[in-house]
Order: sequence, then C-alpha cells, then structure tokens
Amino acid sequence: MSPVAEMEREAAGVTPHEGKLGVMIPGMGAVGSTLIAGVEAVRRGWAKPVGSMSQMGTMEVDGREELIRDAVPLAPLEDVVFTGWDIFGGSMYDAAETAGVLDRDHLRAMKPFLESIEPMPAVFEERYVKRLTAKNKKKGRNKCDLANQVRNDIAEFKSKTDRQIMIWCGSTEIFHEPKAVHQTLAAFEKGLVDDDPDIAPSMLYAWAALKEGIPFANGAPNLTVDIPALQELSKQVGAPICGKDFKTGQTFIKTILAPGFKVRQLGVSGWYSTNILGNRDGEVLDDPDNFKTKEESKLGVLEHIFHPEQNPDLYGDIFHKVRINYYPPRGDAKEGWDNIDIFGWLGYPMQIKVDFLCRDSILAAPLALDLCLFMDLAKRTPSLRHTGIQEWLSFYFKAPDAPAGKHAEHDLFKQAVHLKETLQRIRVESAVGETVAAR
Amino acid sequence: MSPVAEMEREAAGVTPHEGKLGVMIPGMGAVGSTLIAGVEAVRRGWAKPVGSMSQMGTMEVDGREELIRDAVPLAPLEDVVFTGWDIFGGSMYDAAETAGVLDRDHLRAMKPFLESIEPMPAVFEERYVKRLTAKNKKKGRNKCDLANQVRNDIAEFKSKTDRQIMIWCGSTEIFHEPKAVHQTLAAFEKGLVDDDPDIAPSMLYAWAALKEGIPFANGAPNLTVDIPALQELSKQVGAPICGKDFKTGQTFIKTILAPGFKVRQLGVSGWYSTNILGNRDGEVLDDPDNFKTKEESKLGVLEHIFHPEQNPDLYGDIFHKVRINYYPPRGDAKEGWDNIDIFGWLGYPMQIKVDFLCRDSILAAPLALDLCLFMDLAKRTPSLRHTGIQEWLSFYFKAPDAPAGKHAEHDLFKQAVHLKETLQRIRVESAVGETVAAR
Amino acid sequence: MSPVAEMEREAAGVTPHEGKLGVMIPGMGAVGSTLIAGVEAVRRGWAKPVGSMSQMGTMEVDGREELIRDAVPLAPLEDVVFTGWDIFGGSMYDAAETAGVLDRDHLRAMKPFLESIEPMPAVFEERYVKRLTAKNKKKGRNKCDLANQVRNDIAEFKSKTDRQIMIWCGSTEIFHEPKAVHQTLAAFEKGLVDDDPDIAPSMLYAWAALKEGIPFANGAPNLTVDIPALQELSKQVGAPICGKDFKTGQTFIKTILAPGFKVRQLGVSGWYSTNILGNRDGEVLDDPDNFKTKEESKLGVLEHIFHPEQNPDLYGDIFHKVRINYYPPRGDAKEGWDNIDIFGWLGYPMQIKVDFLCRDSILAAPLALDLCLFMDLAKRTPSLRHTGIQEWLSFYFKAPDAPAGKHAEHDLFKQAVHLKETLQRIRVESAVGETVAAR
Amino acid sequence: MSPVAEMEREAAGVTPHEGKLGVMIPGMGAVGSTLIAGVEAVRRGWAKPVGSMSQMGTMEVDGREELIRDAVPLAPLEDVVFTGWDIFGGSMYDAAETAGVLDRDHLRAMKPFLESIEPMPAVFEERYVKRLTAKNKKKGRNKCDLANQVRNDIAEFKSKTDRQIMIWCGSTEIFHEPKAVHQTLAAFEKGLVDDDPDIAPSMLYAWAALKEGIPFANGAPNLTVDIPALQELSKQVGAPICGKDFKTGQTFIKTILAPGFKVRQLGVSGWYSTNILGNRDGEVLDDPDNFKTKEESKLGVLEHIFHPEQNPDLYGDIFHKVRINYYPPRGDAKEGWDNIDIFGWLGYPMQIKVDFLCRDSILAAPLALDLCLFMDLAKRTPSLRHTGIQEWLSFYFKAPDAPAGKHAEHDLFKQAVHLKETLQRIRVESAVGETVAAR
Repeated sequence: MSPVAEMEREAAGVTPHEGKLGVMIPGMGAVGSTLIAGVEAVRRGWAKPVGSMSQMGTMEVDGREELIRDAVPLAPLEDVVFTGWDIFGGSMYDAAETAGVLDRDHLRAMKPFLESIEPMPAVFEERYVKRLTAKNKKKGRNKCDLANQVRNDIAEFKSKTDRQIMIWCGSTEIFHEPKAVHQTLAAFEKGLVDDDPDIAPSMLYAWAALKEGIPFANGAPNLTVDIPALQELSKQVGAPICGKDFKTGQTFIKTILAPGFKVRQLGVSGWYSTNILGNRDGEVLDDPDNFKTKEESKLGVLEHIFHPEQNPDLYGDIFHKVRINYYPPRGDAKEGWDNIDIFGWLGYPMQIKVDFLCRDSILAAPLALDLCLFMDLAKRTPSLRHTGIQEWLSFYFKAPDAPAGKHAEHDLFKQAVHLKETLQRIRVESAVGETVAAR
Repeated sequence: MSPVAEMEREAAGVTPHEGKLGVMIPGMGAVGSTLIAGVEAVRRGWAKPVGSMSQMGTMEVDGREELIRDAVPLAPLEDVVFTGWDIFGGSMYDAAETAGVLDRDHLRAMKPFLESIEPMPAVFEERYVKRLTAKNKKKGRNKCDLANQVRNDIAEFKSKTDRQIMIWCGSTEIFHEPKAVHQTLAAFEKGLVDDDPDIAPSMLYAWAALKEGIPFANGAPNLTVDIPALQELSKQVGAPICGKDFKTGQTFIKTILAPGFKVRQLGVSGWYSTNILGNRDGEVLDDPDNFKTKEESKLGVLEHIFHPEQNPDLYGDIFHKVRINYYPPRGDAKEGWDNIDIFGWLGYPMQIKVDFLCRDSILAAPLALDLCLFMDLAKRTPSLRHTGIQEWLSFYFKAPDAPAGKHAEHDLFKQAVHLKETLQRIRVESAVGETVAAR
Repeated sequence: MSPVAEMEREAAGVTPHEGKLGVMIPGMGAVGSTLIAGVEAVRRGWAKPVGSMSQMGTMEVDGREELIRDAVPLAPLEDVVFTGWDIFGGSMYDAAETAGVLDRDHLRAMKPFLESIEPMPAVFEERYVKRLTAKNKKKGRNKCDLANQVRNDIAEFKSKTDRQIMIWCGSTEIFHEPKAVHQTLAAFEKGLVDDDPDIAPSMLYAWAALKEGIPFANGAPNLTVDIPALQELSKQVGAPICGKDFKTGQTFIKTILAPGFKVRQLGVSGWYSTNILGNRDGEVLDDPDNFKTKEESKLGVLEHIFHPEQNPDLYGDIFHKVRINYYPPRGDAKEGWDNIDIFGWLGYPMQIKVDFLCRDSILAAPLALDLCLFMDLAKRTPSLRHTGIQEWLSFYFKAPDAPAGKHAEHDLFKQAVHLKETLQRIRVESAVGETVAAR
Repeated sequence: MSPVAEMEREAAGVTPHEGKLGVMIPGMGAVGSTLIAGVEAVRRGWAKPVGSMSQMGTMEVDGREELIRDAVPLAPLEDVVFTGWDIFGGSMYDAAETAGVLDRDHLRAMKPFLESIEPMPAVFEERYVKRLTAKNKKKGRNKCDLANQVRNDIAEFKSKTDRQIMIWCGSTEIFHEPKAVHQTLAAFEKGLVDDDPDIAPSMLYAWAALKEGIPFANGAPNLTVDIPALQELSKQVGAPICGKDFKTGQTFIKTILAPGFKVRQLGVSGWYSTNILGNRDGEVLDDPDNFKTKEESKLGVLEHIFHPEQNPDLYGDIFHKVRINYYPPRGDAKEGWDNIDIFGWLGYPMQIKVDFLCRDSILAAPLALDLCLFMDLAKRTPSLRHTGIQEWLSFYFKAPDAPAGKHAEHDLFKQAVHLKETLQRIRVESAVGETVAAR
C-alpha cells in the first residue's frame, strides 16, 4: 500500500463491523465444541458468557463503567459463524458428547445446530502428536500441497462470511526449537515444498491463514507463529497474530498468587505444581516430548513475575516443579494441586496449598471467544493491523509471545491494565473513524 | 496556622529524618515482640526484614528501580527505639518466649536487649476483652485520668526520643457501634470525664497520642480512630491516623484471589473461610462479642472488591461465611482454610480450596514496621500531615478506614499502586524540601 | 409366651423370608428418596447398590466367600415396599427433585414409580426442629392421640405387607437429656396422655412401631429409643431397636483414621473438623439447639476409640472440635475438612488434612437399606428378637446405642468383625431352622 | 544341631534376654541417627518412644491390658548398643545435624554420646544408587572379599555385645528382578566370588549377617533378602529375616483408608498419590531406576487390599498412580498428597483429598526399633527361629515379604491382629521356657 493510501486508511479510523465474522478452528474437540455450543446457548438466552471479558467486562467511558462490547465495535455474537478441522471427524454434537463438558440436557436441546457443524479433514503428522491416531485427515504430496488445501478450505469459507479469524484449539505438539527454516518467510516457504520435518502442522494452518490475510491466535503452547518467518508474514499482510497457550487452570491461579506475594515482599523458596486430567489433552501430554512443550510454557511464568535477578533475597532460589499426569477418572475436569513454600519476616517459612477443581474447556472457551473478537477488532484497527504480535492480549496466555528480544508481561493484573488501555485507545481511534465516516 | 505560615511550611518540603524515632506499642504480645526482636536481628545482620516494603521494596526513580528506603527519607532501623504498654507485664524476652514465634537460639542471642524493654502498666477494661485478665494495669479515677496517665508516659518517652509514633498491637475489643459520644471531640472529651462506657481503652491511647501530636496506627479491627471525634483531632493537630486490622493470613489471600476472579469475569457463588489459631488472639476471639468485631472486618472485603451491585450476574448472590476457632494445638501458627465456589462459561461450577499454614506474627510484624516508618514520614510531609486518615496505607489493612461517605479500596493490587504513587509524590515533595533546605 | 413355647420357637430357628417387607420411613426427604429411587434402579438393573454390605458384601461359608444375601435369609430387594410420613407433602418424585441428589435422567425414567409413593401427614412439633415449617402435618388432641394416628397408619400398611420395619430418616431434633418420663414404659405412656413436652415426635413414631411389634432403627442423633422406656418395650414385644445417627461423611472417615493412629501408637494432640453442607439437614443444624444433638454424637467418637484414660501419653490431651456450617452453594453435596495434629517419635508433630467431598444421601442410603434388611432379619432370629438394642449393628452408627452402663464399640474395623460374626451365628441358627422345617 | 538337641532347645521355650543387644545398621543417615538419638533421649527420660508398639503398646494378659514390653521378654532399651556403616563418614552427631530432624537443643544435649558412634566404611556400588557419591567406602578384590570384610566388622562387634541384629536403613537401590544367581545359596556364593553384577550391596550385608547367625530386617524396598538363596540361608542358620520397606507416610495412610472403603463396600475408580520430599531419600529416588523399586513397593498395596478379582464391580477398574518428586525446600519433612475417587450408591462419585505433612524419619525410627527388638525375640523363640521370613511383622512394611507363592496381608488392621496373636503365642512359649528354667 502506498504511504498516502495508508494515511487515508488511518484517517478512516477503525473499520466498523458489518456482516458475518467467520471463526475457523483447527482442532474442534472439547474446547472448540464448548465454545460453539456456549455461543449458541448465549444467543438463545439460556446462559451467560461468564468468563468472557468481551461480553461481561466493562471499561470506563466518560467517567462511567460501560460494557466493553458497547464501547468498542466488536462483532456481536449473533454474527459469529463457525467452521474448522479435526482429525476425529463427527459433528460438533459428537465432539461435545465425547468431551462430556456440557450438560446432556443443554446438548440435546441444540442438537440440530451442533450437528450442522462438521469439521473438515485435518492436516496431521503423527510425530508431532504421538498418542493420537487420525481418522479424518488430508492427504497431500508435501506440506506445501497440504497447506494449499487448507487455503482452499478458507477460500470456500470466505464466500459465506465477510471476515475471518483462525484460532488453534488443537493438541499440544512435541517440543521443538526454532531452526533455520523458521527464520525467514522465504526459507519457510521453501521448507513447505521440501517437506521440511521442522514445519509442524500448526504452522501450515497459520501460514495458510496469514496468506489469506486472516488473523491467527494460538491456544496451545506450540511454536507455530512464535517464529520470525510467520511474524514477518503477519506484518506484511496486516493480519495480526497472538499466542500462546490459553491461560487456564493452575497457571491462571499462579499468575494471580505470584504478584500478590511479590507486592507484599514475601519470599518464595519452592513451588510444586501437579495436575491430574483425564481428557485427550491429558493423553497427549502423557508423552514426554509433548509434555516438554507444555512444561516450558508453564515454568516461565514465575521467573517473569518475580524477576529473581532483581530480587535475589526473595526469589533467587526458588525450586519450581510442574507435573502433569494423565488420570482418566477425572474426565474433562482437571485438578491442579499446588504446594507453595513462602517465607516472611526474618525468613520464617509458611506454606500454602491450593487445590483447584477446575474444568479445562469451561475456562478456555471464553478466552477463545474473546480472542476471536479482539483479533478481528485488531485487524480492523489501523494502528494495530500491521504490528504482528498483539502483546496487549498477553492477558489470555500462559506464555505470551513477544517480539524478539522483548519479555512479555506475565502478571495478570498488569496484563489486564494493558488490555484495557489498548481498548481505550481503540475506542478513541474508533470514534475518529465514526467522525470520518460521518463526514 | 495562618495561610502564609502554611505556605512557608509547604515550601519547606518534607522534614528530613534526624535523631531517634520512638515507637510506642499498646499491647506488646506476639506481634510486638516479633517486631522488636526482628528489627534488632536485622540491625545485627542476622536476618532480612522479609515482608517489609519499606525495607525490601523498590520504586522507580529516574527510570531505575531503587530501594524505597533510599528514595524517600525514612527513619533507618538503627534509629528506631521501642516502648509500650501491656497487661501481662514481663519483658519483651518473656513475651517472645510465650509467643513461641521466634527460634529459641535467636531469642537467647539477644536476651539482654529484649529484657531491657519492659512494658508499662496498661489501661484495661474487662468488658472490652472478656477472655483475658490483666496483671499489670493502670488505676485511675475515671477514663480522663487514665488517658492522662498515658499522656504522662508519652511525655517521658518524648524526653528520650526525637519523634514518636503509636501503633496498636493489642487485642480485638468487643464490637460496638459509633454513638453520640464519638461524634465530636467535645463530646468525646466530656465522655472521658464522665467515664462513658462507650469509650474503649484503645480510644484512650489514640486520644492521648493525638493530643501529644503523635500519629496513631490501628492494627486491630477496633473502632478506635474510626470515629469523627478523633478524626477531627487528628486533622487539627496534624498527627495522621490510619487503620484498621493488619491484613495478614486469610484476608491477605482473599484480597489477592478475588481481584483475580474479577479481572477474568469468573463468577463466585460461595466463599467459606475457617481459621484455626491457638494464640492469645484466638482465645480473645473465641468470645462472640469480640469475634463480631473481627467478622465485620473480614466480611466486608469481598463486597468491596466485587461490587455486586455493578456485577449482579457474577457476584450478586455470594454466600460468604467466615469462622474463627480457638485451637490451642496450633500455637502462634495459624491455619486458614478456604473453600471457594466459582463459576465460569455458561455458569458451570468449579471449586478452589486454599490451605494457608501461616504465622500471624511473622506476617504482621513487617506491616507494623512499615506503618511506623510511613506514618512518621506522613507526619513530616506537609501535604499529608493534616489530612487525618491516610488512605494510601490501605494496603496494610483488612478494613481500611476512609473518611465518612467514602469507600476505601480493598483490591491489594490497586492499593499497592496507590501506595507507590503516594511515595512518588512524597519523593518529589522531599526533593523540594532539600532544595529549600539547600538555599 | 410360656417358656415351653419360647423353646419351641427357638428350636424352629430363623423364620424364613416370605411375602412383602414393608419399609416405613418417618422423614422422606433426601435420604429417603435416594433410598427408594436407588432400590428401584437396582431392581431394574440400571445400577449397583454400592455401599450396601447386605447386597455387595461377602462372608465366609465353608471356606469360600459367598454373598451375604445368599448366605443368610434376607428379604430380596424385589420384595421391599416403601411408605412413610413427611411434613412437606409431595411425592417421592418431588422429594428427589428437591434433594437434587440423583441424575435427572434417572429420575425421569422412573417418574411414575416415584410419584406413586406419597408420604402421609407427619407428626411435627416446632420446638424440636426450629428451622422448618410443616405443610403436611397431623392434628391431634394430645401426643397419645397423635401416636395412635401413627398406629392406624401402620395398621393399614400391615394389610398390604407381610412384615414391617420402621427407620427414622427425618431431621435432627434439639438436644434434650433423658428425664423421668423416659425411665419406664408406664411413665412414658402416661406422658403421652399428659402431652409431656419431653416426648419428642421421633419417640411417638418409635413407640407406635414397637407397640405394633415392628423393629425401629434411628438414623438421626435424636434421643428416641435411647431411653429405658422404649428399650423395655422393645424387649417385651420382641421388636428390635438400634441407633443412632447414620455413620456417613466425616465421622465415617474419623472412625477409619483414628484406629489407624492408635494401632501405630501415634499420639493425637488436636482434631479440628468442619463441615459445610447446603441441604435441609444443614439448615436444621444451623440452629444451636439442634446442632448440639449432632455435636454430642460426633464428639464421642474419638474418646471411645482412643480410650485416653488408658493411653494418657498419646491421647490424654486431645483438643477436639467439630463445626457444621450451613452453606447453600454446596446443595446436597457435603464437604468435610479435617485438620489432625498427630505426634510421633519423641513427640515430634505432624499434620494431616483430609478434605472429603461427599454426598450425604449417597452415603446414607445403602446404610438405611442394610438396616431395614438386617433389622427384619433380627426380628426373625429367635436369639436376637428379644434383646432390644442390636449392638451388632453399631457399624452403621456415629453414636451406637448400648444398654445402660455399657460402651458400644466405635472402631469401624472391630464393628465390622462383630457384624460378620453375628451374621455367621444367624446363618448357623438359620440352618437349624431349615433342618427343623425339613422334618 | 542334632534333632535331639533341637528338641531339647524347643522344650526350653524362649531364651530370656540377658546382656547387651547389638544393633548393626547399614546406612546411618536420617533414620539411623533419629533412631539412635531417640533411644538415648528415651533412656534419659526426656521423651517418649511414641509410635513404637514394643514400648507403648499393650496386649491382653489374663484379661487385662499389659505393656507388651512387660508381657514378652524383650531386650530393654537400656541394653541396646548401636553400630553400623555409612558412605558419608562423620559421627551420628553429624548425621543427625545433616538430617535436620531433631531439635538442635536435644542434639546438643547428647552430643558426646552421638559423637561416640562413628559408622564404619560401607560397601557401595554406584550403579545401584546413582545419585550419591561415597566418601567412606570399603575396597575389595570382589564382592566376596567385601562381604567378608563386613563379617569381620560383625565379628568384632560380637566381642562387645551378647546378641546382634542387623537392620538396613540405607538407600533404595535400583530395580532389578531375581536372576539365577539369586535362586540358590550355592549360586549366590559363587556369584560373590565371580563379582556377579546382580548381587547388590544390600545383599552382601544380609549374607554376612546371616552367615554370622544374625537376623536381618530390610527397611528399604530393595530385593535383598526377598530371594530364595538368602531365605534358604536364613532357615538353615536359624536367623530370621523380614522386609520390606518401612511403612511410613503415604502408604501407611493408604493401608488405613483402603480397608475402610472396602469394609463399607465403597468403590474406588482412581487413586493418585504424589510425594514431595527433600532429603537424601528424595535425591536417590529422583533417578528413574531407583524410583521403580519404590514404585513397585507402593503400587502393590491397593491390589492386595482390594482383591479386584473378587470385587470387580467395586475395584475392578482402579487407576492407581504414584509419583515421588525430589523437592529440596521440604528438607527431611515429607508431604504426601492423595486424591482418591470413590463411588457409592448407584455409582455416584465422591472425592477425598489427603495431605499428610509428615516426617519420614520420625515415622520410621519407632518401626526400626520395634523390628530390632522383635527380630531379636524371634531369634530367641524356638518356633520362629527357623521359619525364615517373619510374616507376623508385615505390619511394619509397605511390601511385606512372603514365602514363594504366598501373598502377604496388606491390611494394617489385619496385620496388627496377626502381630498381637503371634506375641500371645510367644508369651505362652516364653512361660513354658520359664517353667523349664525353673526346674
């Protein structure tokens, strides 16, 4: 775009919402089906979108608290449409039944709606998710071919919707470090053709989305868009990206408690966290390679909140351990048990135990919804569209992505402040747009 | 003071620290002795003042984090001197031994120092603290006489120190509502002479301190300075006040967790808190009238954080219950167990259990220290001296005092922001003073 | 009965089961409806009677483990018929819905069956259960009249069934001590006519049952049959009695753990137990007078297991506290949290915390079923029929009744041994009967 | 011994205690030093031997409860003398200080006594305990030579004491299965000469002890005496053996709770156990090979109590997982957290969480003491001396050894009954001895 055109667009402010927002979900399992069924239940007036800041949260407007969804031009739930891909086939009704998250009465009542959404065959590579076997998977000559099949799926969906967003709700892939193939877009696209083993399935989806100018949000701890190649593409095409790993369960609690200890200058000598979970997520994470990806995501949290290098007396010697155990009796419900060893005045020790009986998908679904709506908004906001990683959405992630050389904020409360401030800026920018539009 | 004089004083900035800061403690039990022994241990280099923001905390100065105690002109620990009153007699060594908080080796090593501090006979009225019996108590014709005896004690301590501060570390008194006698200073002072039953012992101390121009901090949930009469006196004489109820243990955790749920738009349907504690505090609170005072202090917290009136879908129907049980096997250690019933997406329920094995005095002592130093600083800061209640110290209290008609902030993180901002203002004001002084 | 007749009966052994066993339940709320719906679900083959020793348990027969229900002549579930009384009216379907214990799908599937069972109007006296208001209650001139109305109800039920048993599943009544009116049957029956305030509603039911020759089991901690008058009547008419207070939840766990500490010679210095529950039971127990009845029942347990008088070094100084809190968010589910302070080698302290997320009615229903079947068996067993209190059923009770001057066993494992031994004796006696019958 | 001599000895009953009982401990770390310091503290009258059945427990004698130590001819604590081997050197005072179990005041007061006990250099093989490095270790040509050095140590200790017992309190060795070398004594002794890699250090000690006619008790989960070769030797020489793995902490609680669920016919669908511990034990178990040995020992418990094959409806589908994590902040204290998923009436689920803040050595020391005294007694009891494995001591072990083809009892309560019954038999046999002696 020419600088002049760009300036004109900026002057035009935030593009208002109109038409249908299409949400595309790679991995339509427990989280995906809970999101879709939940949005429908809210639309029918049966339930509240609890946990969703975009729907329930407020922000200050002219000295009063106003609902965020009234203060900034978000797509309303009525205009959201879903599609996606999954390796297990079956409709969203089947997925929701398997997940066992939602009440059977609720599900039955919206069975026709849920049955109408059937995932497309997915891209799958067994070495990235060892414990699962795909039943519904794309075949292709090489990764480039597979990625283009995804682009075709997207193109078809574009014909039915006005704007699109892609959000990864699939499995945790095995841990792998960025390689040369991830460093530039050119190397990456060559790698697609060469079937490079370091290009993970999630990267194919992200690349396809970005190529189509569609924002991509990463709900798993996978590397995906946390590589220079795709960050470059994101900025180039003006399709925002964000990630990674929905901040649910134990890490959510951790990012609440840790800032509390810090603000009170209480030291921490140990933090032991164990999780038991019985759903597909648990099964996948039972493999050490996949667990490593999750572990890295979970372990970083404390360090980024406590800054031990600045507070060595209090946090210089924390023993931090995170364990995840596949435990089928728990089903989709998850349990996180934390033992925290803190110390106070003169170094005297105290202990805190936290047992969180939570439900993974119930915690993740509203985050996914917010990310869809906010990413769509970012794409419509001139000052954000070309910035690549949306750090202002760190609030939603266990391991927030940041541009190379920067550390993202991990303190939930500071993240919330940053999110609200950005929404304020969007609101102002949006008002400009309205003025321009009104001319 | 004439407007001109006032302006000159303001121009003079924050009075620098010089000489000795005398700390006067009504109620020299577990918290008092842990504070005193701890300050001495820190002075000797044996331990760190963990939990004390004034000693360990930092604030931003010219873009870098600097220790608060270097950034604002606090009294250094070397210049702090202690005295106080107690109904049980015995030296601080005895009190520390009875409390059983600190390691016997630590105590023995500073025995001579601790034995040198002996509490003066205290004002005591049995109906306000039913479970205790005084051994070391003042006798007087009426409350006015008793209060003047306290003033005499203060006067004597003034001869040995340069500035003073009083901090209540005594027992929880029975619950009582403000009456006419508490409404004006005149009524209050008449009540002293008339031996009005609604004037509690803690009020005698506060009145005596303020009459002597000395700041008063209230570590218990007692009514004390939370009445118009003493707020009037505080402003008049330029001796700041603050309160009430040190934010330790369970309520501390509550003010961390609740903002976390709120920021994530998670609903709360129930919060059950039980405490077991075995020290004198537990004994006193085993009486229903004394417990009521504590209960009021503890119950208000959630309401002030969640604002159910603004968020009825999420917090409009919380069942909140707080229990305290005297349980001698626990000694000074305290245990708080919380069960929290939250709900997420579509209203689905989840549970959190928190077991906090804490130590009351270890958590309270650094708060008491900070309050002494910050209240002394407030008294030396022209813009704060005459403002009565120091809301910026809400961070330290379960039930922060606020001027009539105002609600104090209860969210720990917002309180911390307010505290740091005030310290920044003091720093600026202090620099002005230095400039003026340098002229 | 003449000694000769008695001897002949003894010789006849255990009367075999035949026809219908009618179960009469005063108080058809959560426990009652869960029992009834559960028995029906088992009969239909939908579920297993887990928790019921009579149905799932085994005993040794000729060197092999055999199901108890095959080894002794119990009434089979197919032949059990239910009726009862309740102050709230509505059918068992309504009661089950209100209780919210069973899955809605289960309930719907047996709606016609559950609707066919409607409680008769109940005897109710407000001072005994303060927090409830009766909607469906008997009116009468005096307690004698009311008790006779219950006898009439029984008489009518007798016409439809072959044998009967009564089991109290109603509320906890207020605490009251045995008085003169409870000492002899004559005094008691005079008290009925005189409307003596110390005769509780539960006693009217028990008296009516026993007068009709029907065994009575007491599932609540009420005084009921724990008085000489009704024990006399029980022996006289040959209708066994037992009680009191179903051993569910926290006390059940306590009677498991305490014997474990004792057998390992570990000392106990404190045991703090708190309960939160949200059903009608919780509501009733929120009244201090009703709680006192429960508290007495719960507190005795440790003393009877530890025998502090024999083990003063280990158990001579236990601080035992039990709290119950009404907490509506929990619904019928119940949560018991225990903190146990134990000590080992040289007196060093350790702690155990137990959090039991249980369901009152799910735990109580199988106990109620066993008691119905075993009490019916006791009535048919010559050597047990005239012994009054059935101590061998102590296994089922928090506060097992014992004849005057005797202490019942509280150790769950010893109780189980006693129960099995008695079943063995009944089996032998039963075989004698079969031999006699075969002649 | 000739058959005649044997018969005469049998006739003589239990040999009475006389002289000194020498206790030899391979592995003198936290457990060993806590045992030794504790026995001395008890001898000095400073503390009670809590947790020791031999010292605090009672048994029925002529209808009254009498202390076990008065009822059977145990060696009194006054006559117990300690020695042992350790790879770390340093005296028992150093070991106790490192372990950090006992109070410093206690330790100082008996410093000279503790310093007087210095471990001899130990047999060590790195591949069996990977995480430790020996400082004080025997050197030898081969395993036979090393074992004979241990025999020499024993021989020397024999000259100072009258009877001896050996008890392994050392580390957990790596998991290994019985091989051919373990099947017969001949093969084993050949293996010693051949330096067979499957002969673990603990086996050298056991062999040396047995060759010297000394009973051997195994406090770790190691294979050690659980092999035919050493069982053969044990019977041959009349030196009893027993094992394995002291039943402390989490498994102790498990063997209390599991029988409780079983006796109430409550089903179990899952049992998740995690441990955090910070002592040397934790360090060793951080290695997967060593953990496997422990895991096997811990996992078997539930199966042996629940007998899922006999109770498939209740226990046929338990998901049982045990985790141990090295967590240095915990020190010698250990924490075991269990989540137990049970189900009741109609299969409805309930949950129990148990958090055990325990201290490994405090729990283990009294078990070690009892085993020393009871094993010495067994050796003096004709009917037990030649029976090899002492199954009646199963009470003390996580994974009780049993003769080939037999399953040992795991239910703590049944184990206790068996122990007491055996003591009764010994008492009778002992009385015979006294009668014979009195002739």
